[in-house]
Amino acid sequence: MKTSLLAIAALGALAQPVLAQTALPPDADLRAAALEWFEPIPQTPQAPANNVLTPERVDLGAMLFFDPRMSLSGLFSCQTCHNVGLGGVDGLTTSIGHGWQQGPRNSPTMLNAIFNIAQFWDGRAPDLAEQAKGPVQAGVEMNNTPENLIGTLNSMPGYVEAFEAAFPDEATPVSFDNFARAIEAFEATLITPDSAFDRYLKGDDAAMTEQEKRGLAAFMDTGCTACHSGVNVGGQDYYPFGVVERPGGSVLPEGDRGRFTVTQTASDDYVFRAAPLRNVALTAPYFHSGAVWDLREAVQIMSSSQLGTELAEAQTDEIVAFLGTLTGKQPQVVHPILPVRASDSPLPQPMVQ
Amino acid sequence: MKTSLLAIAALGALAQPVLAQTALPPDADLRAAALEWFEPIPQTPQAPANNVLTPERVDLGAMLFFDPRMSLSGLFSCQTCHNVGLGGVDGLTTSIGHGWQQGPRNSPTMLNAIFNIAQFWDGRAPDLAEQAKGPVQAGVEMNNTPENLIGTLNSMPGYVEAFEAAFPDEATPVSFDNFARAIEAFEATLITPDSAFDRYLKGDDAAMTEQEKRGLAAFMDTGCTACHSGVNVGGQDYYPFGVVERPGGSVLPEGDRGRFTVTQTASDDYVFRAAPLRNVALTAPYFHSGAVWDLREAVQIMSSSQLGTELAEAQTDEIVAFLGTLTGKQPQVVHPILPVRASDSPLPQPMVQ
Repeated sequence: MKTSLLAIAALGALAQPVLAQTALPPDADLRAAALEWFEPIPQTPQAPANNVLTPERVDLGAMLFFDPRMSLSGLFSCQTCHNVGLGGVDGLTTSIGHGWQQGPRNSPTMLNAIFNIAQFWDGRAPDLAEQAKGPVQAGVEMNNTPENLIGTLNSMPGYVEAFEAAFPDEATPVSFDNFARAIEAFEATLITPDSAFDRYLKGDDAAMTEQEKRGLAAFMDTGCTACHSGVNVGGQDYYPFGVVERPGGSVLPEGDRGRFTVTQTASDDYVFRAAPLRNVALTAPYFHSGAVWDLREAVQIMSSSQLGTELAEAQTDEIVAFLGTLTGKQPQVVHPILPVRASDSPLPQPMVQ
Repeated sequence: MKTSLLAIAALGALAQPVLAQTALPPDADLRAAALEWFEPIPQTPQAPANNVLTPERVDLGAMLFFDPRMSLSGLFSCQTCHNVGLGGVDGLTTSIGHGWQQGPRNSPTMLNAIFNIAQFWDGRAPDLAEQAKGPVQAGVEMNNTPENLIGTLNSMPGYVEAFEAAFPDEATPVSFDNFARAIEAFEATLITPDSAFDRYLKGDDAAMTEQEKRGLAAFMDTGCTACHSGVNVGGQDYYPFGVVERPGGSVLPEGDRGRFTVTQTASDDYVFRAAPLRNVALTAPYFHSGAVWDLREAVQIMSSSQLGTELAEAQTDEIVAFLGTLTGKQPQVVHPILPVRASDSPLPQPMVQ
C-alpha cells in the first residue's frame, strides 16, 4: 500500500502543475495506508518500564514537576520549559536558564514523550527518568546538584511523606533516582489522545477535512513518513538534518553536531532524533535550533533539505493542514499544592557567581 | 472585651516568669474577643467593585495569569512570582525578573488579596486590577508595554474570542483595562476558607489546640491586633515599620522608604501596609525586604520593633502556633490551556539591552 500510493503520486506529479492538489484516495484506502505508518495515541496512560503509575507516584511527580525549588535559584521548574498550557514547550527559541543564560537547543515537548525511542534531541537519555536528571543539573538550566536537591526534599516533611507513599517498599524513598522516576510517572500521564487524526485512523471519515486528508496523503507520498511515523509521528529514530541538502547556519548552527556528541561516530554528524509531530501546531518555534517560527516554512525546509523536493504551494498547505490534525486533547492538570519549606530547608541561591 | 483580656494579661505578666504560658480563657470568651477583631474568609468568592465573576471572565483571567507570553521575554507570568502552589508567593527574598534583575521588595501573596485595603506593600494600587497593570510593565519584572501586550493578545484568535466572551457588551473587548479586570476576576476566586482559625471562629472548639488558642489570646493581648485584624488578619491599614524601634538595615533597608514614595508625606516615612497574615506559615521569607526566613524570628522582630515587647519563649511559640491556624484550604486551579500563537504574534524578546 505504501508503494502503490507513492507510485500513484509520483506518476501524478509529472503531469500536475505546480499548484495542483494531492490526489485524494478513497477513505478506506487512505486509512489503510496510514495505518501502515501510524497508530493512535492510547486513550489511557501506560506505565513505563520499571515504573508504576500509582496515584501517589504520579501526584508526587506532579509536585516535583511544578516545584521551582528544584532549581538552585528557586525560579525554574520542569514546567518553566515544558509548559502544560503551551503544548509542553516554552515558546522560546532556546530556553532561558540560570543567570539568564540561554540554552543550546529548543525545548522539546514532554507531551507524549513517553512514546519516543529516547529523550533529548540527540537521544542521549534512554527514558524519561534519565531525562529528568539532566536539566536540574545543567548549569545553563536549573543549575542544581543532586545533593542540594535531595537535601531540599528531605528537609520538608510533606515531601518525605509523599516519597514514602510513592515508593512504599523502599529503604530510602527520597533519592535522586526516585525523584526522576516520580517525574517520569507524571509525564507518562501527559498524553494527548483524541486528535482529529486519531479519530480518523479509528474509522471516523468526518474527523478530517478533505484538505487535511490530501495532506495526509501528501505526507506519505512525498516521503515524510520515512522519518516521521509511529504513534508519535516521529521520535522513533535518528537522521541527519540535511539528508539531501543542509539548510543554512541559522537553522542548523555549525557548532551543534547533534548525536555525534553522544556517539563520537562520524556518521552521526548533524544527526538528530526526528521530531515527534504530535501537537506540532502548538510547539513553535521549530527544529533543535528553534530558528523557525512558522510551521509552513518548517515544512518547506524539511521538504528541501530532507527530501530534495520543492513542494507545490497547495501541497504545503495540505501538509500544514494535516499537521493541525495531530493536535490532541491537552492534559487537564490541577496545579499541585507544594509542601511547605522547613526552617532548615536550603535557601534558594539566585546569585550568579 | 478587648480591654478586659488585655488587662488580665497585663496584670498576669507582672507575676509570671518569662517562660509562662498565656492564660487560656474559656472558648466562649476567647471566641467573642476574637470576633471583635477578625472575621472568617467567606466560603465563596465575591465580585470586586466594577467587576463580575462570570466563568468566561474568570477563565480568561486564569489564562492571562498563567501565560508567560505576557512578559517581554516570554519567561515570566503572574504565576512566576505568585505561585498558586506555594501559598501565592515565589519563596524568594525578592523576585527574579527580566534579565535576572532582582526586584526591590518581597513578592506578596495574591491569595485573599481581594480583602486587602489596597495592593502592593505601599498600597499604591487601589485594587487588584490596578495592581495587575504594574508588574507587566516594570522593567525589573516582566518588562512589557501595554502596546506589545495588546498586540500579542490581538494576534491570537483564541484570546480575541475569550475576551469577547468575557466582555460581551463592549466595543473593544481586548484592552489593557480588560486584561487587568480579567486577572482581578480570577484572583478574586483565589481565597482560602476553612482554616482551623475560621472553623474555630464559627464555633468549633476542637478546631484549634490549646497552644494555638493561647497564641490567639497572646496575639490579642500583646497588641498584634492593633495592626493585624480584619478578615485578612492584616492588610487593612498602613503603619511605620518600627513603631517603637526600627529594626536593623538588613530587615528594613534604608533605601526603601515605603509609602513615603507614594504620598511624599513625612509621616509616611518607612510606612508599609501591615502584612495580611492569612497563610503566613506558607509565605516565607517575611517582610517587604524578604530578609527573614523563620516565622518565629519574624514574630520576635515584630514584637520588639512594633510593640516594644520582649515576648516570653512560650508566648512566641504560642503565637507561631496560632499563625499556623491561618492556613486555609488552598485553591485547586486547573492549569489553563493557553491559546496558540499566530504567525504574526510578536516574538518573545529575551535579549537584554
